[in-house]
Amino acid sequence: MKFRDFVAGASFRAGPREVGEAEIIEFARRYDAQPFHIDPQAAAATRWGGLIASGWMTCAIAMELAVGSLLAGSESIGSPGVEKLRWERPVRGGDRLTLTVDVLDTRISSAGSTGIVRWRWALYNQRGERVLSMRATSFFDVGGSASSE
Amino acid sequence: MKFRDFVAGASFRAGPREVGEAEIIEFARRYDAQPFHIDPQAAAATRWGGLIASGWMTCAIAMELAVGSLLAGSESIGSPGVEKLRWERPVRGGDRLTLTVDVLDTRISSAGSTGIVRWRWALYNQRGERVLSMRATSFFDVGGSASSE
Repeated sequence: MKFRDFVAGASFRAGPREVGEAEIIEFARRYDAQPFHIDPQAAAATRWGGLIASGWMTCAIAMELAVGSLLAGSESIGSPGVEKLRWERPVRGGDRLTLTVDVLDTRISSAGSTGIVRWRWALYNQRGERVLSMRATSFFDVGGSASSE
Repeated sequence: MKFRDFVAGASFRAGPREVGEAEIIEFARRYDAQPFHIDPQAAAATRWGGLIASGWMTCAIAMELAVGSLLAGSESIGSPGVEKLRWERPVRGGDRLTLTVDVLDTRISSAGSTGIVRWRWALYNQRGERVLSMRATSFFDVGGSASSE
C-alpha cells in the first residue's frame, strides 16, 4: 500500500499469525530471560499459571503483521514513537494473533517530504480478546527526489 | 535486586551492550523486514543513509539490559504497559548501548500483593546520544503466599 491509501477512518486487518512456544522461549532467552518467559515449570508457579510471551515479542509480531500487509511496498521510513502501549492480556504458545489498524489522522510535514500517519494498532487472540494496543505514529518518505531537507 | 530497592529518585545503569549488524538483520528479517532494516544497500539510498535497527529490537535490548541487572532475582511479574515510547535516534551496527533507569514512584496495590514501579528508561549510544526513551510501569509479586487475589 501507499501513504495515500491511509486516510482517517480507514481500517485494516492482517493475520492470523500463530505464536509457537519454542519462539516465545527463543526470543526471551535472548532479550527477556525472566522465568515466566523461558521456563514452563517456573512459569506455572507464577500468577500467570504458565509460559507467556515477552511483551516486546508481542510488539514485534504486530510489526511483522503490519510489514507483511499495509506497509508492504509503501514509502515507510520508520516511526518516531508510540503512545499508550498496553499489554492487556498474556500471549501463550498456540495463540493465533490478528492485527487491526485504524487510521486516526494523516498529514504532510511542512517541508512536504514526510507523510505522517497516526493510527491505533491492536492485536486480538483467537478468542477475540485484545492482547495488545498502542497508538503509533509512522513516517512515509513522500518527497520524491527532493534532497534539500 | 528486589522491589524494596526501587525507591523514588533512585537511578540505575546497565551496559554497555554492543549491537551487531548481523543481529539487526536477523531480527528484522523475522519481525520487521523493511529495506532499511535488512538490506544495507537499499538502506544507504534512504534518508537513513545506511542500515538501522528495528525500533522493537532496540526496545528488546533495553529489556535485556534491565533483566540482566536491576530485574535479576527480583519479584518481577511483567508490565501492563509503557507511555511515551520514543525512538529518538537510529541505532546502527557497532553501536554500544547503555541503559539508564530512574525510579519515578512506587506503591503497593490495594490488595497488598503487587508492587508497582513507574520508572523512566533510556538508552544512550557510545557518543552519549539518547536513542530510546520510555516511561514504563512494572509489576512485582510481593504478596508472599497470599492466594485470594
